[in-house]
Amino acid sequence: MAVYTDVSAEDLGEFLASYQLGELKSYKGIAEGVENSNFLVHAGDSHYILTLYEKRVAAGDVPFFLALMEHLHARGITCPQPVKNRNGETLGRLCGRPAAIVTFLDGMWMRRPDPPHCAAVGDALAHMHLAGADFAGKRNNALSVADWRALYQQAAPHADKVQAGLAAAIEQELSHLEKAWPRDLPQGVIHADLFRDNVLFVDERLTGVIDFYYACNDALAYDLAVTVNDWCFDLRSSALNTELARWLISRYAAVRHVDKAEQKAWPLVLRAAAFRFWLSRLHDWHFPREGDLVHVKDPAEYRHKLEHHRRHAPPAL
Amino acid sequence: MAVYTDVSAEDLGEFLASYQLGELKSYKGIAEGVENSNFLVHAGDSHYILTLYEKRVAAGDVPFFLALMEHLHARGITCPQPVKNRNGETLGRLCGRPAAIVTFLDGMWMRRPDPPHCAAVGDALAHMHLAGADFAGKRNNALSVADWRALYQQAAPHADKVQAGLAAAIEQELSHLEKAWPRDLPQGVIHADLFRDNVLFVDERLTGVIDFYYACNDALAYDLAVTVNDWCFDLRSSALNTELARWLISRYAAVRHVDKAEQKAWPLVLRAAAFRFWLSRLHDWHFPREGDLVHVKDPAEYRHKLEHHRRHAPPAL
Repeated sequence: MAVYTDVSAEDLGEFLASYQLGELKSYKGIAEGVENSNFLVHAGDSHYILTLYEKRVAAGDVPFFLALMEHLHARGITCPQPVKNRNGETLGRLCGRPAAIVTFLDGMWMRRPDPPHCAAVGDALAHMHLAGADFAGKRNNALSVADWRALYQQAAPHADKVQAGLAAAIEQELSHLEKAWPRDLPQGVIHADLFRDNVLFVDERLTGVIDFYYACNDALAYDLAVTVNDWCFDLRSSALNTELARWLISRYAAVRHVDKAEQKAWPLVLRAAAFRFWLSRLHDWHFPREGDLVHVKDPAEYRHKLEHHRRHAPPAL
Repeated sequence: MAVYTDVSAEDLGEFLASYQLGELKSYKGIAEGVENSNFLVHAGDSHYILTLYEKRVAAGDVPFFLALMEHLHARGITCPQPVKNRNGETLGRLCGRPAAIVTFLDGMWMRRPDPPHCAAVGDALAHMHLAGADFAGKRNNALSVADWRALYQQAAPHADKVQAGLAAAIEQELSHLEKAWPRDLPQGVIHADLFRDNVLFVDERLTGVIDFYYACNDALAYDLAVTVNDWCFDLRSSALNTELARWLISRYAAVRHVDKAEQKAWPLVLRAAAFRFWLSRLHDWHFPREGDLVHVKDPAEYRHKLEHHRRHAPPAL
């Protein structure tokens, strides 16, 4: 939650001269996005989000993210639409940084989603997976199974300080996941971070899917598992809310056909999706990046979720 | 620039139920206001600013600020208008804090104002002073001449670490101002912080005067001096831009009659207005408040401005 780059009205006016948005009426830095600087811009009769990509986002990845949003939006997904400048480009530079403007979407994220919210998210995720099938861009998942060991090795020396035996527990789970991870899962473009704060609603109407800055190519079922793990757990009891999970998963499966390999791997995929966030949060806990201090999330939340999946039968897929 | 309080959509929805704003469509924490948490709220067909008053603002002062904005807005000043809830109240509570909603004003602040901007600010300030004449509320200036010595005594032991002899230089100026400060200046409600970032423009049209959280009763000429000291100095050379000052002051004086006592005291008032920000910045420099680390402003800017006023004839009033 921060604005890293200070943009003056004078600089913004100059930047917007290359767009056809109408008169600039206001802009406010918004406290959103840990990775980038975001501004809510009012120009002409519309609102936009202006994003300056800070150093944490690889500049080479930005065209992938923008092209993906364009692609999905053109296929009816309610995601931000990158706005083209007079040269037909969606990516420019402002204050020495890559910068882009996308359409603003109304809506709020739900901290305590109800069944209709979960149903809508399952539906939207499945439609995104279908709409992404003919997207030409490629981006590796920087946090796929193959990347976890390196992350573990960095965090391991510190893990036992959190709790004795923690490093060994992580290693055991990691080794299991590395060996058992199935290679036959349907692949595609995934959002990879469809947490509650990246889906907007007005009442029960889903009005926006946002923040595509972890999107990549990977197993579609993994994306579903990441989503279930955030939306369907009771944060107090750390138990899966089976009703929410049933709504989310059944609506997903009603839109996109889930195959046998995915059904078979589902318990493992849920565990892997929990493990990935446990591990990355543990890593960020010990190696906070600049400006992260107030944003570091508790790794234990995902440790509990992983434990839950190890002990219980998974929600039906 | 921060949002201190995290407000959930669920909490906000509950709070807004006591207002008649129409359907809540979105809200974003905005990176503005060092003292409070601010949100840009879209509800019905309009935009609003929701402010949660954090501990730095004395809760007892909030009704004064809100009543002043109401008063000025009713008299045609382009400032935010506090919105009444169904009980006719402008002040409520949200997330355990005093909270208020005001109308949103379009516009951007100018880092490098031109003569038309300075003229518009002079005009607006004079109209505010006139409109405030029949405002019933009273609030002492917490940073008036009488308060400076206490601030000086806190900062003095550290001042010489910044530069040898600094404490003595401050004391000398302080003693001079205390003795020479005139008691016969016309008093009224002043904004007390009409810096560039508190005045919004669309092109050259002044669209908003904001941030009344230093407003108080004090000498009107002092408010004008604070404004001139921010708007009319060349930040690189630390010299007064006499053209900008002429525009600002002459437009002010064209609206509100400046009396003889003010004209006589003008050189001293300009010095005092520079001294006040030098002193408070020096104080904040040595005693930064929590969350202030990136917002502390360079005291030297105001030391140079004070020096300028000591060495040069003032711009005509």
